Amino acid sequence: MEYASGKDILKITTYEGLMACARNNQPVVMHGAVHNIRDMGDFAFIIIRIPAGLIQCIWDKSSGDQTVFEQIRTESTLELYGVAHEEERAPGKIEIRLEKIVILSVPTEDFPINISKRKLGINLDTDLNNRPITLRSGELRARFRIQSGIVRGFREFLDANGFTDIRTPKIVGGNAEGGTNVFRLDYFGKKAFLAQSPQFFKQTMVGVFERVYEIGPVFRAEKHSTVRHLNEYISLDFEMGYISGFEDIMNMETACLMYIFDLLRKDYSRECSALGVEIPVFDKIPTVRFRDAKELIAAKYGHKIKDPYDLEPIEEQLISRYFKEEYGSDLVFVTHYPVKKRPFYAKDDPEDDKFTLSFDLLFRGMEITTGGQRIHNYQEQVDKMISKGLDPTGFSDYLMIHKYGMPPHGGLGLGLERLCMKLFNDNNVRYCSLFPRDMNRLEP
Amino acid sequence: MEYASGKDILKITTYEGLMACARNNQPVVMHGAVHNIRDMGDFAFIIIRIPAGLIQCIWDKSSGDQTVFEQIRTESTLELYGVAHEEERAPGKIEIRLEKIVILSVPTEDFPINISKRKLGINLDTDLNNRPITLRSGELRARFRIQSGIVRGFREFLDANGFTDIRTPKIVGGNAEGGTNVFRLDYFGKKAFLAQSPQFFKQTMVGVFERVYEIGPVFRAEKHSTVRHLNEYISLDFEMGYISGFEDIMNMETACLMYIFDLLRKDYSRECSALGVEIPVFDKIPTVRFRDAKELIAAKYGHKIKDPYDLEPIEEQLISRYFKEEYGSDLVFVTHYPVKKRPFYAKDDPEDDKFTLSFDLLFRGMEITTGGQRIHNYQEQVDKMISKGLDPTGFSDYLMIHKYGMPPHGGLGLGLERLCMKLFNDNNVRYCSLFPRDMNRLEP
Repeated sequence: MEYASGKDILKITTYEGLMACARNNQPVVMHGAVHNIRDMGDFAFIIIRIPAGLIQCIWDKSSGDQTVFEQIRTESTLELYGVAHEEERAPGKIEIRLEKIVILSVPTEDFPINISKRKLGINLDTDLNNRPITLRSGELRARFRIQSGIVRGFREFLDANGFTDIRTPKIVGGNAEGGTNVFRLDYFGKKAFLAQSPQFFKQTMVGVFERVYEIGPVFRAEKHSTVRHLNEYISLDFEMGYISGFEDIMNMETACLMYIFDLLRKDYSRECSALGVEIPVFDKIPTVRFRDAKELIAAKYGHKIKDPYDLEPIEEQLISRYFKEEYGSDLVFVTHYPVKKRPFYAKDDPEDDKFTLSFDLLFRGMEITTGGQRIHNYQEQVDKMISKGLDPTGFSDYLMIHKYGMPPHGGLGLGLERLCMKLFNDNNVRYCSLFPRDMNRLEP
Repeated sequence: MEYASGKDILKITTYEGLMACARNNQPVVMHGAVHNIRDMGDFAFIIIRIPAGLIQCIWDKSSGDQTVFEQIRTESTLELYGVAHEEERAPGKIEIRLEKIVILSVPTEDFPINISKRKLGINLDTDLNNRPITLRSGELRARFRIQSGIVRGFREFLDANGFTDIRTPKIVGGNAEGGTNVFRLDYFGKKAFLAQSPQFFKQTMVGVFERVYEIGPVFRAEKHSTVRHLNEYISLDFEMGYISGFEDIMNMETACLMYIFDLLRKDYSRECSALGVEIPVFDKIPTVRFRDAKELIAAKYGHKIKDPYDLEPIEEQLISRYFKEEYGSDLVFVTHYPVKKRPFYAKDDPEDDKFTLSFDLLFRGMEITTGGQRIHNYQEQVDKMISKGLDPTGFSDYLMIHKYGMPPHGGLGLGLERLCMKLFNDNNVRYCSLFPRDMNRLEP
């Protein structure tokens, strides 16, 4: 009988492993793809891509099998035998003097794009049309390693604070939040929709686990093409019970972002410095009421208020600028949004029922989070649905939680790609999605 | 200026925190929902649900505010003040003698279902129709805590082994894998599909990070209703490069499952024993060729082979039974599936091109994983598409990776709900999805 063994798994090549050999000039066996070749005449630098970054290898043309060397080209994948040395000027301060090369695969064609430069330097459409290739560049690899670090930080922080990780359906029977921006699909002859958020499910799960989070795709059929919208994006959602106010949610997000940014500084410093990322440092985030924020920027920047119920993008920028200039903060919570612009599950402010106990978080000029306290009382929720022109009978599954008992609760959704966009100082959110989806782009 | 503070976040009630107080008979403040009330005449047990489980509280009717006690009912949410004691017979060995109760919310109606029993004991449809409520039962809470532990184990193991976490689109432009079981949607007037798997994307990302994983929803429009199919389920996918054979993938999965099961034994033992889960112990998993497996069960159980190209459910059961009886193993890898039944990206066995370098993992009578080595050579992939009757020009984005260079690679998809179903000894996979989606069920 043959067995698959759990004791004998394939190792990857890491900086740490190679460095351990380099310190004692030991032989190494490694694998990787050829990122670049620099022919120097008598010898050649073969720059190898490993998961963590690049490794500089030297091939001496006066020894070894030249026929093999001549066959390799950019993006060949290789198994490499050599001796590791410390080398101050090389990536990871390691250099491998090659003795033998085994070719594992050779591409059929060369890349149409040079990906070995530090910055890709191509226009966005060219980048996106060629993502299977451009993602192999140092710049894009760094972006998505950091993105993975942000997700990891979100999870680790919430795991440590008693949240349970959940996975809820993306195909839903009702047009959950009543919006028009929803994708429709044919579900065995029945009408169905793609979930715009896990809102109802995560609230339901507060009744089960008190604190829950979900990291997953959400779908918005918004018919406008802007630099800040994607039609499918990753939402980092959490929801928590037994809050004494929506401030508890803002505090939790503040602590969560502090944790994430600390993690990036600690474990992703190579990627962050490659991209020139400036990671904010803070232990509190200023809060300002929606109404006051409008007045502050009207007074300071002479901005004219057009829409009293919502923030325009320019207003988000000015509010951010104000709090950067006045308080040195890259982040600001705008609180108490008007009832008119918030969904039917938002809890009204008992002190002024034109406003809700809700907030957005602005980061460097853009909204990255929407959150707030939810209605937990059955009658209050039914009444608010009616006042918003909705028929409560269409929400009977959702209303079960209110009818049969819910603690005071609230939560938020954080847009992963937007957080990355502002962290990376990008001018378009599409840079921060592996394979972005917008009105005109369904592929690759 | 007001601030949200990252230093001052809301705490939850935990067994560990209460036990620290119970050891010294200290006062505690806690919150939770009323899971059950047992009125004993002079006093009452109020069983409170906290995220980790239940807490037994005692209310003495001769002291304190009786009007408050009389208002509470099952699923009321409370803030509780009392003194913690050790009590051998209580859940978590803790009992709280209450001094004051503050009501946070009271339900409008009582539950139509008794959820305070150890086993729910209701039929599946009643359970699923009332999921917002039944999920609050001990049985379902244990299921989904364990499910969250499985996901955590999958991630932790892969993170520690150099895999990068990715998130790929669920809306795709092409009918990626050529199947008929695909959901269609209208995407701004264009035809689009819901991804049946992250297959192309994860292979693409092997060219970028060498090892990747994704935990996300996949969508299958299968038009049959069985106990083992969901139309939306969670796939745990990984894909890795530089393999020397598909055995590397089976070894990685074996080690990963060992890690997950160890984690369940360590951190989820309370939930596992509540459900009576028997967690397999192993450090290797037997492998058997598809053709040999058919013959083994034909010889031993007199089973007649009908379909020589695929395994019927009864055959999966008999193969599992065989390896349990002969080798004491709950798991078995069936390898070398026929080309005819495997997708076009499966690599053929160079020793016999009627078979592929692929496998399924059977767990207690059911397939829970499909995996294998993929074709990495451009011409080989183009030729195989043509031999399968597909037009390679429809796959130009995918074929970029083959054209511009890929290492030998492979991977797998593990169905989360099926793994849970066999672990929990359930007879229907719907038990293991929070809000299952099938041909007849789109809600809740």
